[in-house]
Parts: sequence; C-alpha cells; structure tokens
Amino acid sequence: MKLAIQGELGSFSHEAAIKLEPRAAILPCTRCADVFDALASGVAHGAVIAIENSLAGSVAENYDLLLKREAVIYRELRLRIRHNLIALPRTRLGDVRRVFSHPVALEQCRKLFRSHPRLQAIPFYDTAGSVRHIVTEKLNDAAAIAPRKAAVQYGGRVLLAGIEDDKKNFTRFLLIGKCKKKVPGANKTSLAFALQNVPGALFKALSVFALRNISLSKIESRPIVGRPWEYVFFADMNRGEDEAARNAIRHLAEIAEFVKVLGVYPAAK
Amino acid sequence: MKLAIQGELGSFSHEAAIKLEPRAAILPCTRCADVFDALASGVAHGAVIAIENSLAGSVAENYDLLLKREAVIYRELRLRIRHNLIALPRTRLGDVRRVFSHPVALEQCRKLFRSHPRLQAIPFYDTAGSVRHIVTEKLNDAAAIAPRKAAVQYGGRVLLAGIEDDKKNFTRFLLIGKCKKKVPGANKTSLAFALQNVPGALFKALSVFALRNISLSKIESRPIVGRPWEYVFFADMNRGEDEAARNAIRHLAEIAEFVKVLGVYPAAK
Repeated sequence: MKLAIQGELGSFSHEAAIKLEPRAAILPCTRCADVFDALASGVAHGAVIAIENSLAGSVAENYDLLLKREAVIYRELRLRIRHNLIALPRTRLGDVRRVFSHPVALEQCRKLFRSHPRLQAIPFYDTAGSVRHIVTEKLNDAAAIAPRKAAVQYGGRVLLAGIEDDKKNFTRFLLIGKCKKKVPGANKTSLAFALQNVPGALFKALSVFALRNISLSKIESRPIVGRPWEYVFFADMNRGEDEAARNAIRHLAEIAEFVKVLGVYPAAK
Repeated sequence: MKLAIQGELGSFSHEAAIKLEPRAAILPCTRCADVFDALASGVAHGAVIAIENSLAGSVAENYDLLLKREAVIYRELRLRIRHNLIALPRTRLGDVRRVFSHPVALEQCRKLFRSHPRLQAIPFYDTAGSVRHIVTEKLNDAAAIAPRKAAVQYGGRVLLAGIEDDKKNFTRFLLIGKCKKKVPGANKTSLAFALQNVPGALFKALSVFALRNISLSKIESRPIVGRPWEYVFFADMNRGEDEAARNAIRHLAEIAEFVKVLGVYPAAK
C-alpha cells in the first residue's frame, strides 16, 4: 500500500503515516494539492494529511482540498510533536549559527532562540527537508529543527531533543482514500456545509445537532472562492452512522445550500 | 501619526495604511508580534493589520494577537489585491526565469506559472521585500509578484499588471490602537469568547445573537494554548453600541468563560 504525504521522508507526516499503516510505502509530495493529485490518479492508494495542530490551528489548505476533491476520511491520529535540533554528526552545539526549519516549527521553539541569541532562524520549506539540506550541503555551522525520524533518515545527529516550547503540542492527521467504505468502530463524522448569507443561519444549522444532543468537537470556517465574505463550514460530530446522526444530516440538508459527508471513522483516543 | 505594519514599505499593508490614514508615517515590522510590540511600547501610535483575505482566509496570527495583547479596533478597510510582475527597469519578460514572492501571492497567481512554464516560483518572506531584493541584488533573470506600490518604492518596473487568478481578491485590514475611544458611525462589534467544552455550547452562545436578530458577518475559531482541542471563538456582529448589542454581550458573558470586546467601529463598505 502506497501512501502520499506532504513533505519529505522523515517528516511528522511520515511518522503519522507509519503509525497509521506500519507497512505502507511512502510517496513524499511537495504541495498539499500534489497529495490529492496522487490519490486521484491512483499513483497512491491513500494519503495521510495534517488537518490541525493544537497550537497553530487548522491546516486551511487541507480543509479546502477535502471539500474540492474526491476523498474520504478513514481514520485519524493525534501525534505528539517533539522538535529536535539536528546537525551533521561532527557539529557541536557551539558551532551552530543558523537554524533551518519550517516557519511553524521555528515559531514553536522560540525559547531556544531566546536562550541562544547567536542562533539565527532561517525559514525553510520543510522540517525534514532542512535536515536533508544540511547533510547534503555539508553545512557545519547549521542545524535544523525536525523530528527525530529525520536524523535517522538522512544521517544527522540530535544535538538537543524536545526543544518545543509547549509540550501540549499535537497534530491531528487524517488517513484518507478515494472510495467510501464502512470503517469498524466509526464514532465520528466530518461534514462540510454552506449556508445562505442570512442572519441566524449558523445558529439554525447548529440546532440540528444541539436539539439531538449531538456534540461537535470542532467547527471551522473557510472562505468561498468567488463569493467574498461568505463561508463554508466544517464540523466534526461525535457520532457514527446512527439514527440521530442520519436525522441531523438530513435536517442540515434542509437548511444548508449543500452538505458533504467527508468521512465516518473512529475518533482518535 | 506613526503606524506600524507587518511587511516592507510598498506592501499591501502599506497601501492599506495610507488609505486609512493618508498622512501617517509608516513603521515596517518583520513579524506580526513586532507590530503589537511597537504599539505597546508607544514606538507607534497605531497599527494596520491584515485580518482576512477573501481567498486565503483568516490571518490566524493576528487573531491570536488581538486576543493576547492590549489593542482596540478603530476602523476596517477592504483592499482589492492586485498582483503585478515587477522586475529591474531593463529586464524583459523573456529574460525572467525566477519569480520571488510571498507563498500566498505565488499561490494566487498560478495561471501565470501555467502559461509560462519556464518561470520558477521561489517563496520569499514578503511581496514588496522580494522587489527590494531583486533591485538591490540587481537580479536580471528574476521578477517579483508584488503590489504596484512596491515598483514605485524600489525603482522596479511593472512587466505584467493584474496577474491574480481571481479578481474577487480582497484583504480586510484593521486600524488598531492602544486605547478605547468612541468612533463615530460605529455599527460593527468584534468579540472574542471562550466556551466550556460541553455539548451545545456554541449553539447556546450563538443564541444570544440570533434571539435578538443580530446578524454575525464572521465567526472564527482558534486553538487555546495549553488546552488541546479546545477553542476560542471570534465573532463580528453587525451592530454598534446599542441596547440589543449590550444585552447580547451581557447574555454571552453568562454563558462564556470570558468575553473580550475587541472593538466597536464602522463597517467597511
């Protein structure tokens, strides 16, 4: 089974993919859209996408793609994000002047830069990709902020482990595929819906859940392209395919311009 | 009056700041947090921040900062985003191989790259900053995607104008200051609030608006640091400081863990 991920081998997405499907072959993709392309063309059998970080928030691009493309959510995973400072095997901490990483990772390790003022943060396109860059370019004065897996992948060495400012740092990943299928133990449903731009529209839409005592674990809004200042909503409800959930979705369809079920799957523990 | 902006001179933020306060002096800042620092320290009298783009969505960092820092919204502006391909004065379109810009701007001009496959997109930290980079480094084979203002600012030349894929491309900017003040014609209120993590909490919170026929133009959620998978909500209501609005806020405070009024100001037309 081949799984597409956004980012390089050794990235957090790679780690998540292996936890979700231990024997999967991994197809690294540059952009989120490339991941969905790989799924659509059949080059990959599935994909693992980051949907939300507990500090940085939603991955907007993947929300948009889940709506636009043909994809179904099969499972979710919450991965603890541990950042490490990784350099060439012979580089010592005192040698490091430049620190490469994805902007979000740099932002999540600000204490490191405050306590080591000589370190200069350099934004790079990918966490694991910055380890690869340092190793292939043999940069003796540089290090990368990346998962431990990236050190193993590219032959780097961990200089400092667990350098993230906030230990309650988790990313929620979704395993997605092309076709609908029944997933055993499904107790969570992800929906997307658009509402008419009239007062009280969202209140009415949420009533279909509240009046049935269905709780939502998350609600997100994204702009509608071509209709400035109008939004599509994404909601996760803590129910699988039972009668109340079916009724709620049918009721929502009466109110909404459209409703799309993005997946019915087991909630991460 | 000195206004802090995130980004370089010649950026869209600069353009927005001058539209909001034509005679303001501009203080360019690297990061969004620097803008709020300049405001807090009194180095700047006000600031102009991007809060939402009609295609890319909310500027999450500025939502977080509006909540965490002492800042009050005075006015808002909707700026039409026109992207241009800008190069050194003697560079011709046929000479260009590399195109620098902010990743969001690159993403909003994908048709340019499809119709000119020889152009390589290179992510850079800022739109206007990429024009400055090309001019100061005298890069003959490069161009930048940036506002027209940046060409004037740094002595570049517009090779192609209006290259954004979608013409319904607007960014909403906020003029913020440090102290509360009555703004004439105020008919919009921005709020932040947190809810207990119980079923139906958001439904109840929205009822305080719906039951008073108060319409919301926008709702946004952001993670709460230290409490994974819990959220703070941001809502814009189409009302100034009238009785219904005051009652709604008082009612919301009964339900919410906290309510913060971020500003009462005239809605952009």
